[in-house]
Amino acid sequence: MERADKGLAFMLQYENVAWYDSGEVRILDRRVYPRRVEFVTCRTHQEVTQAITDMVTQSAGPYTAAAMGMALAAYECRNMSAADQVAYLEKASYTISHARPTTVERMKLVTEGSLAAAKQAILEGRNVSQAIVDNTVESNNLRYNKIEKMAHYLVDMFPSNGAVMTQCFGETIVGQMLKVAKQQGKNIRLFCPETRPYFQGARLTATVCHDMGFDVTVITDNMPAFVMQKEKIDVFTSAADAICLDGHVVNKVGTFQIAIVAKYMGVPYFVTGAPDKGHPTVDTINIEMRDPDFVLQAMGVKTACDGVKGYYPSFDITPPHLVSGVVTDAGIFSPYDLHRYFASGNEGEYGQRDLCV
Amino acid sequence: MERADKGLAFMLQYENVAWYDSGEVRILDRRVYPRRVEFVTCRTHQEVTQAITDMVTQSAGPYTAAAMGMALAAYECRNMSAADQVAYLEKASYTISHARPTTVERMKLVTEGSLAAAKQAILEGRNVSQAIVDNTVESNNLRYNKIEKMAHYLVDMFPSNGAVMTQCFGETIVGQMLKVAKQQGKNIRLFCPETRPYFQGARLTATVCHDMGFDVTVITDNMPAFVMQKEKIDVFTSAADAICLDGHVVNKVGTFQIAIVAKYMGVPYFVTGAPDKGHPTVDTINIEMRDPDFVLQAMGVKTACDGVKGYYPSFDITPPHLVSGVVTDAGIFSPYDLHRYFASGNEGEYGQRDLCV
Repeated sequence: MERADKGLAFMLQYENVAWYDSGEVRILDRRVYPRRVEFVTCRTHQEVTQAITDMVTQSAGPYTAAAMGMALAAYECRNMSAADQVAYLEKASYTISHARPTTVERMKLVTEGSLAAAKQAILEGRNVSQAIVDNTVESNNLRYNKIEKMAHYLVDMFPSNGAVMTQCFGETIVGQMLKVAKQQGKNIRLFCPETRPYFQGARLTATVCHDMGFDVTVITDNMPAFVMQKEKIDVFTSAADAICLDGHVVNKVGTFQIAIVAKYMGVPYFVTGAPDKGHPTVDTINIEMRDPDFVLQAMGVKTACDGVKGYYPSFDITPPHLVSGVVTDAGIFSPYDLHRYFASGNEGEYGQRDLCV
Repeated sequence: MERADKGLAFMLQYENVAWYDSGEVRILDRRVYPRRVEFVTCRTHQEVTQAITDMVTQSAGPYTAAAMGMALAAYECRNMSAADQVAYLEKASYTISHARPTTVERMKLVTEGSLAAAKQAILEGRNVSQAIVDNTVESNNLRYNKIEKMAHYLVDMFPSNGAVMTQCFGETIVGQMLKVAKQQGKNIRLFCPETRPYFQGARLTATVCHDMGFDVTVITDNMPAFVMQKEKIDVFTSAADAICLDGHVVNKVGTFQIAIVAKYMGVPYFVTGAPDKGHPTVDTINIEMRDPDFVLQAMGVKTACDGVKGYYPSFDITPPHLVSGVVTDAGIFSPYDLHRYFASGNEGEYGQRDLCV
C-alpha cells in the first residue's frame, strides 16, 4: 500500500479525479486505488468516453471526467471554423454523455454545461479548453458547497454516539459527512459493505473514513442484516446515481437489498442528492447490464469454474416506501414530495448543474 | 482449472471429502477447490481438529473429517490398555467436537458415535480405526438416504420451469436436489450468490450445478434482491448448520438477509435439514466470530488499506417467521412445529446421527 499523502485530500482534488492539460486528460484509476496510485491518460475525447464506460473512475468522478473530455474535444477541433467547432463539440457532448446508459441525463447536464461555456469562449475568442476547465471548477465549487449543506442535514440525523452503515462510495458526500460529524463532535463508527464486484466500499469508502480518523469496519455484502442487528446500526445512508422525481432511488446494486433489510430492522435509510428532473418517473431508468464475466472474478482472481454464467447489473432501484428521506442541499424531503425541491427555487442553470452529485 | 473427472461424484465421495488410512487423514482442501485439487494430510487428531477450525473442509465435510479424526486417534492409542484407549478417545472426542463453536452439538453426535463404535471394537478385539471407518460409512449411507428423501420433498416445491436461489454450499443436498430435479424433468435455472468471504457459492455450489448439467449463474452477495425481482425467483433454499427446535435457522452469514428479502418479495424460503435436539432454543447458539482480517481480502488479494477493521461472523440466525418450511427426511414441517418431527418417531441412535446434515 503506497499511500503516503494519498488520502482523502488527494483523492477529491479535481486535478486528481480527472484533469485536462495540454491535449491530454489524466484520470485517477479507481479500479486499483488505493492499492496503487495510477492514472489513465486519454488523448482523444473518445478515449475519455471509453475510460468512463470501463469504470476507470466512479461515483462523481465520471462527471468531472466528462467535462475534461469536452475540454479535450475543444483542443481537438481548435483549428476549425467557429461553426465547425460548435458542431464538433455538440457531437462530443452526445458521445461522452452516453458513456454509461444509467447516467445519460446527468452527464448531459455536465457536457451541455461545458458546451455552453465553449460557445461563449468561441464567440469571445478565448481559449475554449481553458474556458471549459474554468467552468468545471466553478460549477464543481458550487456543487461542493451544496454537498456541504447536504452533509449538515445528514449528520443532524446521526446520534452523538452511534453507528452508520454506508453503501458503495459516495465520494464528496462521504468526505463532507465525516468532516461535519467531526466538527459536531459526533462519535460515529462506520460499517462499509465491501461492494462487490469492484470493492468500492472496501477500497474507497473505508479508506476515506480511515484517513479522516474514524473507526471503520469493512463487511462483506452478505453481512448487513447481521451487522444492523448485532452492532445496532442507527442510520443507513448512500448517495445515488439518480433520484427520480417519483422517489425511486437508483444506486449501486445492493442498495435496494440493504434498504429492505433496514426497513425490516427499523433503521432509517437516508439517500443524499438532489432529485433528477431528467427522470420524472422510474420508467425512464435503464439499468446498465455490464460484462457478466466480471462477477466471476475477485481482485483479478477467477472464482467460478468455466461454463458457469455471471450476471452484472450495475445498479438497482429502491422504491420510495423504503426511503426515509432524500437529503438535499435544501433540507430533507419525503421521497413522495420531491417536486417541492424545485418549487422552493432550487432550479435553473446552476441548479441543474448541481444535480450532478 | 484442472477439473477433469473432478466433478460432483469426485467431490462427494467420502474418500475424497476426508479419509483415514494407515495412520493419516487426508482432507480435500475446499478453500482452493475447484481451482486446485489439493489434500491436507493430518498425522494427529489435533491436526484434524485444526484443519476443521481452519475451514479446510466445509458444509458436511467437517463431520466426516471429525469421524476420521477419531479413527486417527484410535490409531494413536492402539498400543494402550483398553481403559486408556477409551480415556484417550473420550478426550479426542471432546477436542475434535469443539473445533468450531457453532457446531459442537452436531460434532458431538458424530464423535460420540465413533466413540461407541470404538468401545465395541475394543471389547471385541477388532481393529478400532477400521471399526470407526466402517461405522462412518454406515451412518453416512443412512444420512444420504435421508437426504435423498429431503431432496424429493424440496423438489416438489419447485415449478416445472423455474428459478431457484441457493445460499452457500449445501453439499449433499444440492447434489441430491439436482439429481431429483433431473429425474422429474424439472427445468430449473439456478442463481448462486458467491458467498463471501470464502466464495463457496461461486466455487462449490455453482460447480456442482454446472457438472450436473444445469443452467447456473453466479451473482455477488449484493444482488439477491435485484435478481429475485428481475429473474422471478420461485424458491430460495439453503441447508443449515443448525435448526433449533424453536424454528431459528443457523446458517452461513447472508442467509438471514436473503430470507428477509425473500419475505419482502413473496418468495418462499425452504431450509433443508433435520431439527437439532442439541439446540432446543436459539439461546443455545454461539455465533462463531472468525479472523476479522479474512474479510479484508478476496481470493488472497488485499482489498482495504491498513488500519481498516474487518468483521467476520461465520453464521447468522434466521427467525422462524421468515422460514416457509423445514424440509426434513420425514416431510416439510412448519418452523413452529418441529417437535412433531421427533414425535413421529424420527429419533434414536440413527435418528440422532442423521441430524448431522
